[in-house]
Amino acid sequence: MTQPAMTQQPPQAPRGSRSAAPADVHSASTEPLTPLGFLGRAAAVFPDREAVVYGARRSTYREFAAEVQQLARAVRARIRPGETVTVIAPNIPAMLMAHFAVPLAGGVLSPLNPRLTARELAYILEHSEARVVFADGDVAATVRDVVGNLPQAPLVVEIVDTEAGHAGPAGPAGSLTYDDFLAQGLAGPDLPWWVADEQAPITLNYTSGTTGPPKGALYTHRGAYLAAEGAVFHNGYTGATRYLWTLPMFHCNGWCTPWAVTSAAGTHVCLRAVRQDAIWDAFDHEGITHLCGAPIVCAMIHESERARPLDRELRMTTAGAAPPPSVIEALESLNITPVHVYGLTEVYGPFTICEPQPAWAQLPAAERARLMARQGVPMVHAGEVAVMDPDLNRVPADGETLGEVVLRGNGVMKEYFKNPEATAEAFRGGWYHTGDLGVMYPDGYIQLMDRAKDIIISGGENISSIEVEGVLHAHPKVSDVAVVGVQDDRWGERPVAFVVTEAGAQVSADELRAHCRQSLAGFKVPDRVEFVQELPRTATGKIRKNTLRALQDGDGSPAVG
Amino acid sequence: MTQPAMTQQPPQAPRGSRSAAPADVHSASTEPLTPLGFLGRAAAVFPDREAVVYGARRSTYREFAAEVQQLARAVRARIRPGETVTVIAPNIPAMLMAHFAVPLAGGVLSPLNPRLTARELAYILEHSEARVVFADGDVAATVRDVVGNLPQAPLVVEIVDTEAGHAGPAGPAGSLTYDDFLAQGLAGPDLPWWVADEQAPITLNYTSGTTGPPKGALYTHRGAYLAAEGAVFHNGYTGATRYLWTLPMFHCNGWCTPWAVTSAAGTHVCLRAVRQDAIWDAFDHEGITHLCGAPIVCAMIHESERARPLDRELRMTTAGAAPPPSVIEALESLNITPVHVYGLTEVYGPFTICEPQPAWAQLPAAERARLMARQGVPMVHAGEVAVMDPDLNRVPADGETLGEVVLRGNGVMKEYFKNPEATAEAFRGGWYHTGDLGVMYPDGYIQLMDRAKDIIISGGENISSIEVEGVLHAHPKVSDVAVVGVQDDRWGERPVAFVVTEAGAQVSADELRAHCRQSLAGFKVPDRVEFVQELPRTATGKIRKNTLRALQDGDGSPAVG
Repeated sequence: MTQPAMTQQPPQAPRGSRSAAPADVHSASTEPLTPLGFLGRAAAVFPDREAVVYGARRSTYREFAAEVQQLARAVRARIRPGETVTVIAPNIPAMLMAHFAVPLAGGVLSPLNPRLTARELAYILEHSEARVVFADGDVAATVRDVVGNLPQAPLVVEIVDTEAGHAGPAGPAGSLTYDDFLAQGLAGPDLPWWVADEQAPITLNYTSGTTGPPKGALYTHRGAYLAAEGAVFHNGYTGATRYLWTLPMFHCNGWCTPWAVTSAAGTHVCLRAVRQDAIWDAFDHEGITHLCGAPIVCAMIHESERARPLDRELRMTTAGAAPPPSVIEALESLNITPVHVYGLTEVYGPFTICEPQPAWAQLPAAERARLMARQGVPMVHAGEVAVMDPDLNRVPADGETLGEVVLRGNGVMKEYFKNPEATAEAFRGGWYHTGDLGVMYPDGYIQLMDRAKDIIISGGENISSIEVEGVLHAHPKVSDVAVVGVQDDRWGERPVAFVVTEAGAQVSADELRAHCRQSLAGFKVPDRVEFVQELPRTATGKIRKNTLRALQDGDGSPAVG
Repeated sequence: MTQPAMTQQPPQAPRGSRSAAPADVHSASTEPLTPLGFLGRAAAVFPDREAVVYGARRSTYREFAAEVQQLARAVRARIRPGETVTVIAPNIPAMLMAHFAVPLAGGVLSPLNPRLTARELAYILEHSEARVVFADGDVAATVRDVVGNLPQAPLVVEIVDTEAGHAGPAGPAGSLTYDDFLAQGLAGPDLPWWVADEQAPITLNYTSGTTGPPKGALYTHRGAYLAAEGAVFHNGYTGATRYLWTLPMFHCNGWCTPWAVTSAAGTHVCLRAVRQDAIWDAFDHEGITHLCGAPIVCAMIHESERARPLDRELRMTTAGAAPPPSVIEALESLNITPVHVYGLTEVYGPFTICEPQPAWAQLPAAERARLMARQGVPMVHAGEVAVMDPDLNRVPADGETLGEVVLRGNGVMKEYFKNPEATAEAFRGGWYHTGDLGVMYPDGYIQLMDRAKDIIISGGENISSIEVEGVLHAHPKVSDVAVVGVQDDRWGERPVAFVVTEAGAQVSADELRAHCRQSLAGFKVPDRVEFVQELPRTATGKIRKNTLRALQDGDGSPAVG
């Protein structure tokens, strides 16, 4: 032990320390909340732990943090604080890096789906005033075309993904690659893993726009920190977690999981495309412990020829539709625990979770699935859920009375970017209005019955399209189904069902209508059943009911699939 | 499914809902952080789960929340917002209830050790301006005497603990029992599990006062929320957790564990007295998964005649002194994982944790124990640790250069209550100054070398009493040890050791000095070794080195034990 040096000397800190924060950023006892510090801490404490896996590429937390710092320095030279940086890419490492590097540079990250059309991209890039746009090689050419017409002329950076066979930019002279851009941040001091204001925006997530032009949900550093910590608790992320990236990061920032898994210093296993083989490769060779995904991902997993019971418990969190009993049983037989959550772009991803009650384990499979199909209760960080009538009175918690699901608390976005009217409308009465209709049970669990706009009003009676879909889905020959209301001179609206049958299965419309009559009041039974090859869906997997309705309101002959 | 009622009706919420918050308490997207909501959520989601166990008494979360609400209503009738309510009790249910009920009533909880002297109680009760004092039956008479002389004349409520053989108040006519008091809160609406200001105080924790009169560390709702969530992550608390209350709740609010275990909706197993048999009874019959405690509790566990390997992993978090290799090995052989943390009253309990690195598992036991003996790195919620010289420059992270351990971030208290001078002194330069001397290693882990006041300066050289104690502790015949500096005309100070030997062991002072010479520079070897029956300790287990020093500065003949 030597004496402390008493002379003035420059501050020294160990590698990866979070100590670069200027003294005026926070007082001794209040530090603004931000998920950026999670990476600073993970890199300082677990520098040699595997942080990011992508094909043959493996990065430690030291390397993860170093690339983020380098990227952040390069970004900071291009933007002013609070400006938007867009990343259009699948779940590749560059998208993960951007979740830390863009806010570290003082920017706001706007992650976008590479499957958006040129028209959608043009709208969002202009609305978000993007200054830098990182584009995956598959979409770089389209993006270059789009930005050519934008007033702010953002810089386009092409992400050359050699795993995907990209070979470098095919664009005009001077086109920048991610590696070129990264090199611009090589020199310079590390940026602090801190922010001055926890209410400052961290990301901008555009809605899928099923009801109009996409709206930009603004997330804050504080909200992202709390949502990430909520995810850590409810998923049980630890340093031993190996998380498979099936859920898109362009969708609600992958439910804040880039920050959550990093907070726990777990390992991110990236996946460019969600394919059955790639998932089972990761299960078999990467020791995956957790993943999230839509029902289609659940189906891909248990329907795979390679499906076999895993030697460890794997936790699969799913949303978008309740897992049916057969899926729950199929997953559990593989040692996969399905967890059902509910949320929206406006609430950092999941807000409620169907918390399993120990007593449910004793119930028959169908009864257990019925309880698990509910959207549940608020996650520990999220806040409060209520079901309200149009006058903002809570409906009785009787499991029957329909109302709108409303949310409030730290799990709710700050606002819609540049859209105070939409913000005021969505936040009326101090609650975020989801537009989803549901009921609350006496045990406080909510269950969605329908989107407000998807309720079918027939002869003054409400028909829940979800209820009718659930009945049809339970038929063994039905693989996928959507029920929509079509105009009817006598009743106002009448339900029509679009059905995809199981491969090779034969079933008639009359058989399915008879099946419905066993469970549903007569007025709820669809007037018609149309068989289609597949249902039209948004990029995030939501059924485009407006497309189906439009078809019916037109010549009546569906042309889907 | 029925239609929502369109007429005005009073809000209805399911049992235990957090919905009682007035609309103006928070906006739709920002809710002040408070750990109170953890109980609201646990009671709403897991009403029938076992929440509190104490002897034959078992309460569900529904009952836990109901008693807290009732107690809060009774407290609220007695205090104005922000006033202090004191509880002087061991780890019995009333102390746990108070951690929620007092802040729910708008008060500030001051938990106190029943072993405090009348003089200490009088000082703290007057300084804290306590309005209501709950006193365990064992100390109620003393407390009544003390409060008789206080200017504010607080109400005394006696906690009659029938498990401890209490039979009701033996005080003057009109003495109130906890049950009497609770009955006053029977009627009334539930109070909201919410606060208007997350920076408002929630508790007031008095230091043990080894350096002067006790100081009151003020914790905030925000800090307590974050510390609790940090504890949940690092301890891995879940709904299946069964936490044994060996760590006193009057010590830093039991490291915020009342809130942490409740956040996870785990089970609190209360324990009036920390006895070997009671601990093993709980291990054997209550399925304990976690506990915290001082090294003496570690020793009680592995030295018990009933010690046997557990059928589950149990996590034991310890602080105050690093667990020596023999203790680590003994605990691990019982399937108990020791975790070493470091903190102070001023930082919500633990601030750093010696995060185990997977590679350590391969090391020889002594080397692993050496690494685990370090105080480690900040917990995920806490903030930043640094080791600084007197000019507030960071010392080199070389594992050798001594400096003061300083802390900042959300894990640091708000201030010392009614003591702006002490607050300013402790927070100089924007960091909380611990008064502990330590080093930082290249891997960012800190290690304490001594309390600032416990460093022995001999002939201009620093001698770390902790270093010398560590060497003596490693001797197989030494059970407990303290090294202090005594005045010396020639050298300024010289080290003297006080040693408790293992039961039945025989060892001479010369043998121990020869043992020291094998590991320490000659000037560090204690001039004298005094054998004592036991070391004088504070109520929280800290060795009273000032008592030992005073003995030595007096007639030189120790009279301890």
